[in-house]
Amino acid sequence: MSASAHKPLLATVLGQRQARPPIWIMRQAGRYLPEYRAVRARSNGFLHLCYTPDLAVEVSLQPLRRFDLDAAILFSDILVIPDALGQSVRFEGGEGPILEPITPQTLGLLRPERVLEHLAPVLETVRRLRATLAPDKTLIGFSGSPWTVASYMIGGKGSPDQAAARLFALRHPEAFQTLMDMLVDASVAYLVAQLLAGADVVQLFESWALNLDEVAFARQVIEPNRRIVEGVRARVPKAPIIGFPRGAAGNIAAYVAATGVNAVGLDYATPLGFAAAQVPLAMPVQGNLDPLRLVAGGAQMEARVSQIIAAFADRPHIFNLGHGIVPETPIEHVARLVELVKRGV
Amino acid sequence: MSASAHKPLLATVLGQRQARPPIWIMRQAGRYLPEYRAVRARSNGFLHLCYTPDLAVEVSLQPLRRFDLDAAILFSDILVIPDALGQSVRFEGGEGPILEPITPQTLGLLRPERVLEHLAPVLETVRRLRATLAPDKTLIGFSGSPWTVASYMIGGKGSPDQAAARLFALRHPEAFQTLMDMLVDASVAYLVAQLLAGADVVQLFESWALNLDEVAFARQVIEPNRRIVEGVRARVPKAPIIGFPRGAAGNIAAYVAATGVNAVGLDYATPLGFAAAQVPLAMPVQGNLDPLRLVAGGAQMEARVSQIIAAFADRPHIFNLGHGIVPETPIEHVARLVELVKRGV
Repeated sequence: MSASAHKPLLATVLGQRQARPPIWIMRQAGRYLPEYRAVRARSNGFLHLCYTPDLAVEVSLQPLRRFDLDAAILFSDILVIPDALGQSVRFEGGEGPILEPITPQTLGLLRPERVLEHLAPVLETVRRLRATLAPDKTLIGFSGSPWTVASYMIGGKGSPDQAAARLFALRHPEAFQTLMDMLVDASVAYLVAQLLAGADVVQLFESWALNLDEVAFARQVIEPNRRIVEGVRARVPKAPIIGFPRGAAGNIAAYVAATGVNAVGLDYATPLGFAAAQVPLAMPVQGNLDPLRLVAGGAQMEARVSQIIAAFADRPHIFNLGHGIVPETPIEHVARLVELVKRGV
Repeated sequence: MSASAHKPLLATVLGQRQARPPIWIMRQAGRYLPEYRAVRARSNGFLHLCYTPDLAVEVSLQPLRRFDLDAAILFSDILVIPDALGQSVRFEGGEGPILEPITPQTLGLLRPERVLEHLAPVLETVRRLRATLAPDKTLIGFSGSPWTVASYMIGGKGSPDQAAARLFALRHPEAFQTLMDMLVDASVAYLVAQLLAGADVVQLFESWALNLDEVAFARQVIEPNRRIVEGVRARVPKAPIIGFPRGAAGNIAAYVAATGVNAVGLDYATPLGFAAAQVPLAMPVQGNLDPLRLVAGGAQMEARVSQIIAAFADRPHIFNLGHGIVPETPIEHVARLVELVKRGV
């Protein structure tokens, strides 16, 4: 392992266009892989998997054994932060997470002082991955962005329109701000710790940046993301940060201008020409194949991969899906995708 | 009733800016009104309500008795088309609609020839509304756009990501096209019949225009909407049409340029400055208050209403929510909203 080895994906985040785009896949360590399902089946629940370095390292590395990916991403979840804060977080069956919703009254019961101690096993996973990964592979750490995490903490579960959290923000602006401040601070501490433990890059997953008017977007997405970038860089100067504001749509230009992220992840609904026009040419972009095109595979997928690569050929570009890979994805389609991207189509 | 009376909302759709924006509210005849809930409770199911002119006329007119709205919208549902085609469509409890999902094999069982006969009661409702409404009120008819309707027909229910329908379109392109063609034809016939029965304007509800990359958006949203506009105008020249492609986001400029709609509805996540830049100045816009701002009410709502009116003061603008009003909306907030808009804030 050598810190000075060339890592094409890290270099791209830092603004250096590569001859062929490097590639990783959101949720690349996941249920579409039988070897992942095997580890998951013998773990004592999803959070146990996240908090057991032996297992988390193993599943983080699994996709790189199969595919010539340019990065490993820490295996963890955006909801480890509420769990670390002491909120009840459960993952049951195929249901998605269930949290005990917080209220303005129960907000004071959260324990921000214990976050890093609680997440120590995740940081150990980062250290072990750093020690194991080949020198040309980038190690990506991550955290959920405050609005996205808050939407689960307030709503108690995933929701297509985040109505509970959006109403909370309108009805209880002070309590909402207290929560966002707490999440900004916890995210900064957690991301700094990941970088110090060996992550090359960190990604902010703002998975629910949709469904906000621009006033709410500025307050609930842009400002907390900006504060995290500022806070992380105050302790790790020039820390490489990817922002992924899924659904930012008409707010994407404001997001990249204001947050200070190095690179921006594009969801698959972002038109290529639109992205090229809204995001400055010097800004690296990441994305953005529809995961269902990967499920369906074949000529339509290959055509779309070519379009995406061509659209961003003049700027630093990291190939990725525009949302997480889904469990029903055929493994051979993933292999074909990686081969196409590596060939530069 | 006089066909030549000035109707501010119709005039706005036709491109004439008014001193104050006219207003209607998506789903204005709905569960937030106790008088609606009373009629609904004594109807024999939701579709029975849609197909019984006495009841449908009554609930269509209820919101205009309470509020100084500029339009009545036909009380119906976007899923009357699959019901008319012979697909099983059920509305049960608070669950949302349940359909027997169609497959490439069962597509041939649909019966496009019976659509207009089946929808005759809805057309009778339009005629009665036309005969009842004050001469300055605009009567709005509507239909679901093919992609949105298809997403229910294929998925069997509402879905946050329309995964079933999106995969169907990728895996069975010919069957998908057959379905879209059928829906385009049915929509044209249905909208023409509504216009001939007395609707002043029709709106195309493309409620699920999100979650599509621009290739899919062009095929699944723009082209079917364009064909409907063309087909309707072939039989009702200059028919006034509002398109509402919810979630069009980065595709909004392409949508308005290609479909031929007179006016475009903006969802609440569309930033005001972005909309003003993407939609040509001559194009009337409709929207776009977040329905949850109306639920929460108070100073934040009033400030946002002022922003919206100011942002579109230089073009024809119809005030509306950016999505349907929700059941928990306090009636007094609706009254306040209408008062603010009528005053021009």
